[in-house]
Amino acid sequence: MKPLTPNLNKWSDKTSEHRARMLISCPDQPGIVATVSKFLHQHEANIVQSDQYTMDPEGGMFFIRIEFDLPNLESKLESLEKDFANVADEFQMNWRISLAHKKQKLAIFVSKEDHCLLELLWQWQAGDLYADIEMVVSNHSDMRELVESFGIPYYHIPVTADKKAEAEAKHLEVTAGKVDTIILARYMQIISPKFLQFFKNRMINIHHSFLPAFVGGKPYTQAFNRGVKIIGATAHYVTEELDGGPIIEQDVQRVSHRDSVHELKRIGRHIERIVLARAVSWHVEDRILVHENKTVVFN
Amino acid sequence: MKPLTPNLNKWSDKTSEHRARMLISCPDQPGIVATVSKFLHQHEANIVQSDQYTMDPEGGMFFIRIEFDLPNLESKLESLEKDFANVADEFQMNWRISLAHKKQKLAIFVSKEDHCLLELLWQWQAGDLYADIEMVVSNHSDMRELVESFGIPYYHIPVTADKKAEAEAKHLEVTAGKVDTIILARYMQIISPKFLQFFKNRMINIHHSFLPAFVGGKPYTQAFNRGVKIIGATAHYVTEELDGGPIIEQDVQRVSHRDSVHELKRIGRHIERIVLARAVSWHVEDRILVHENKTVVFN
Amino acid sequence: MKPLTPNLNKWSDKTSEHRARMLISCPDQPGIVATVSKFLHQHEANIVQSDQYTMDPEGGMFFIRIEFDLPNLESKLESLEKDFANVADEFQMNWRISLAHKKQKLAIFVSKEDHCLLELLWQWQAGDLYADIEMVVSNHSDMRELVESFGIPYYHIPVTADKKAEAEAKHLEVTAGKVDTIILARYMQIISPKFLQFFKNRMINIHHSFLPAFVGGKPYTQAFNRGVKIIGATAHYVTEELDGGPIIEQDVQRVSHRDSVHELKRIGRHIERIVLARAVSWHVEDRILVHENKTVVFN
Amino acid sequence: MKPLTPNLNKWSDKTSEHRARMLISCPDQPGIVATVSKFLHQHEANIVQSDQYTMDPEGGMFFIRIEFDLPNLESKLESLEKDFANVADEFQMNWRISLAHKKQKLAIFVSKEDHCLLELLWQWQAGDLYADIEMVVSNHSDMRELVESFGIPYYHIPVTADKKAEAEAKHLEVTAGKVDTIILARYMQIISPKFLQFFKNRMINIHHSFLPAFVGGKPYTQAFNRGVKIIGATAHYVTEELDGGPIIEQDVQRVSHRDSVHELKRIGRHIERIVLARAVSWHVEDRILVHENKTVVFN
Repeated sequence: MKPLTPNLNKWSDKTSEHRARMLISCPDQPGIVATVSKFLHQHEANIVQSDQYTMDPEGGMFFIRIEFDLPNLESKLESLEKDFANVADEFQMNWRISLAHKKQKLAIFVSKEDHCLLELLWQWQAGDLYADIEMVVSNHSDMRELVESFGIPYYHIPVTADKKAEAEAKHLEVTAGKVDTIILARYMQIISPKFLQFFKNRMINIHHSFLPAFVGGKPYTQAFNRGVKIIGATAHYVTEELDGGPIIEQDVQRVSHRDSVHELKRIGRHIERIVLARAVSWHVEDRILVHENKTVVFN
Repeated sequence: MKPLTPNLNKWSDKTSEHRARMLISCPDQPGIVATVSKFLHQHEANIVQSDQYTMDPEGGMFFIRIEFDLPNLESKLESLEKDFANVADEFQMNWRISLAHKKQKLAIFVSKEDHCLLELLWQWQAGDLYADIEMVVSNHSDMRELVESFGIPYYHIPVTADKKAEAEAKHLEVTAGKVDTIILARYMQIISPKFLQFFKNRMINIHHSFLPAFVGGKPYTQAFNRGVKIIGATAHYVTEELDGGPIIEQDVQRVSHRDSVHELKRIGRHIERIVLARAVSWHVEDRILVHENKTVVFN
Repeated sequence: MKPLTPNLNKWSDKTSEHRARMLISCPDQPGIVATVSKFLHQHEANIVQSDQYTMDPEGGMFFIRIEFDLPNLESKLESLEKDFANVADEFQMNWRISLAHKKQKLAIFVSKEDHCLLELLWQWQAGDLYADIEMVVSNHSDMRELVESFGIPYYHIPVTADKKAEAEAKHLEVTAGKVDTIILARYMQIISPKFLQFFKNRMINIHHSFLPAFVGGKPYTQAFNRGVKIIGATAHYVTEELDGGPIIEQDVQRVSHRDSVHELKRIGRHIERIVLARAVSWHVEDRILVHENKTVVFN
Repeated sequence: MKPLTPNLNKWSDKTSEHRARMLISCPDQPGIVATVSKFLHQHEANIVQSDQYTMDPEGGMFFIRIEFDLPNLESKLESLEKDFANVADEFQMNWRISLAHKKQKLAIFVSKEDHCLLELLWQWQAGDLYADIEMVVSNHSDMRELVESFGIPYYHIPVTADKKAEAEAKHLEVTAGKVDTIILARYMQIISPKFLQFFKNRMINIHHSFLPAFVGGKPYTQAFNRGVKIIGATAHYVTEELDGGPIIEQDVQRVSHRDSVHELKRIGRHIERIVLARAVSWHVEDRILVHENKTVVFN
């Protein structure tokens, strides 16, 4: 199949050159919204969407995501950020501004199961995933042809017990500074703490169970043995604690006693690809704020 | 059963005496959020929650719902509203401010099916419905004992072909100026345009189908005959067009060829009570804005 | 409220005097269905519904549930069972026949939360639960008035650390031989192994989490702390392993970062009552077969 | 991408050479199950799965689907069918037996939207769709390269106002007698009654709404204008009545006021591909019986 160019017309104003997204988290206090919205108004930006959440009105954390339009945004961004730094200091804000039309660069890591990778490739090709898939990295060579048929580079980096350090060095070499986010699309290798620190809150994994049920290996077999009536999948940011990172999204489907482990896997594959694709699209649209071990998702 | 006093502790700060809700709809233009949030900040109100939506950034309608805290709110409300009127004029706002702790007064209309009424009574008693049920009105006498056991007045107002005008006059007499909102909890009589005008966007009906499928009578029989695989229910504001008013909430449940009309009704009763209860709670928490034939629900 | 007599018209032929249910589990082998259906046909019974399931065609367990109609069933039951015993022996069957119109007798155990109890009472009163609620047992006295208003006896049996044995003796005294099934409708006391053995596969509990996630206490707080995006509830038969018995039914609902522990509880109460009510109705309609730690649910 | 051979290992015994499926519909009367199961037992077939449904015990229609294993099935099929014809006559049965390992041949018709086609191709490639995709037929040439990359023939048959008859003749020429079932995977042309009669109950369409809501054109625009809170898709057998054929499967997803028509389409594409894929897999596994304008789905 000849690589198709994703049709991005559909995004229209959501990813226009004038659109930016501002994400802020800070301790709550009176006047934040007033100050920020006045700041934007004075800089001639028009707020088109705003979502906020306060963990607890009495002294909790405050989170806000603002989409605004500002003509000639790119040329004004630097001074806008410089000016805002003063506001941010006053409120002890953790913040960033990103340009909506600027696509995130993704690396997808995969092992032998292709369904999550295929869903991302397909959504990308359909223009539903507003991002650049820079590369696919795998510890196997099985999917090279498929991936290259989409015009995407494929790095086969074997991971064996005695060459872990070497593999990790290669992972860093191909990704660090070259991609914004890493997607573990059923990548069945442990990520080292060292590699992780380069992609804190920028590495998304799909776990094939409804976490925290069935952590660890073979979750569908565990689910079958326990006789659950609903199975699920969980997309989360990767942290040092295995299957313990901040949950981004989960979904489930009903099963019954008739479903064998094989059938659970088949149903599960479907949930996994949906859940991972949702999590990735929220991530690249800057809809997720992480606080301690939880996510605030403005979707 | 002795009438129980609903336990409202659980609402805590959400319905504190200092909390107000401001609802605004107006044509979109730059600076609305900045102006409103500055206004509130200058009046020493602290925004704790804010949701907004713009129909179309280029010249559409703008909707916002703000929850704010302001000490000694009740005594300051009048001057706050007076001051805000100037802001509102400038932006051609349709707006209102309501006190979170002030409960709406409800009248529930019911015919012979009791499940929707019971769900509301039960949620009210459990303290999950923050409102006062002022009365139940019915064209039948069947539920008098049940309703009075909750300590709620029951008006039996028969509706017969030749006494429609008389019934309507009584409806107006008991409700107009005495309740804020009317809930049609499977009330099987047509509401006259005259009565409606007193309760525009303040009368909620539950329709026992997934509108716009199966408008009109006997929707479960219609659904059975069409062989659908999912049935639903719809809560909507009542307008002159039968089953055509702005939809507030819908929900569905899967059915199969095994389900008889009786079974569809049983499943449907469950969906109906959930959907109606959700719609009512959003309404009394001022989470719904109506624009033309649609609702904006900030939940 | 005057106790209402449940309207059971709606059950019609499903619970007619001629309808019986036959449940069989046995090692699979060729000819079971042929033998059983021939037996029933020769005894002039007409099969109106049949569900079967084989765990693994090669030497697994076979489960079947048959509904059949047989005129003058009650008078013929004894000889039918006697005749069938020979068939059953041949196939090493674990089996039973129950009369559809004969209602199971239930005891409901409850502590301080009333939502699950209320749902069962209400479904019973609406005629949707085909069973007799013989009694409500509680370690508190809070719900006496409510329960007695339905015309149902209420046993207040306090459970304190030093009087466990005494309480248990009373539990046995009021239930053993007097009810078929015990429903733990948010009964927050541990059931002793001794009491359990009287009600093996006849005691149903509702756990307020999506098991096996969040076993043990305070599951909603656990769910909040873990930041899950979906919460659930689980109905299961009670075994000696806490929260570890065969799962009958589960359901879930989506939540978000906005939902506090209080809000999770509110949403959860709703799931709990639905899930428990479903499990109970399947149980009393003989739709559940238990095999080791799993259920086969023919619904 | 080099065409991959679907991995069908996973189907194992479900599609073994010894497995057959028997589908029967007939007027209900006592003894059907006994007769059929005795017949199969006498012919040394072992029933591994059986589902039945009676529309109404008193004189309704009876439907049964039986999976059985019979060694050397293929060589015995003819005599088995001949013998069964006598049984079938006695009970006025409409029946068929099909071999589980024999794949159905499919033709997929498509216009310009590729998501439903892609889902089927992908499930086929993943081995989840047990069928042969013999060809893709389109009134456009857009998807030729994609389809041929899977090693599947592509027929571009333009349909213009003045050449309808010619197009139809070509459709018949390429499909009649060559495929078992036609899938309309967002094929936006009306099917003529003449073509239909060749594929009665063997032509499946996906309609992009929750039928019977929003029949006809532009259902997502209709849904947007009506302000519904849930959208859906419907797979149905094609009949002469547009959007009126027997419904096989439906599914839905929640939407909100925030979702534009474009967003509804994006969400809808996802529901459409799931629903169509489910309907196709039930069809090729002989899980669907059609009676008048309804389906009985044993899944």
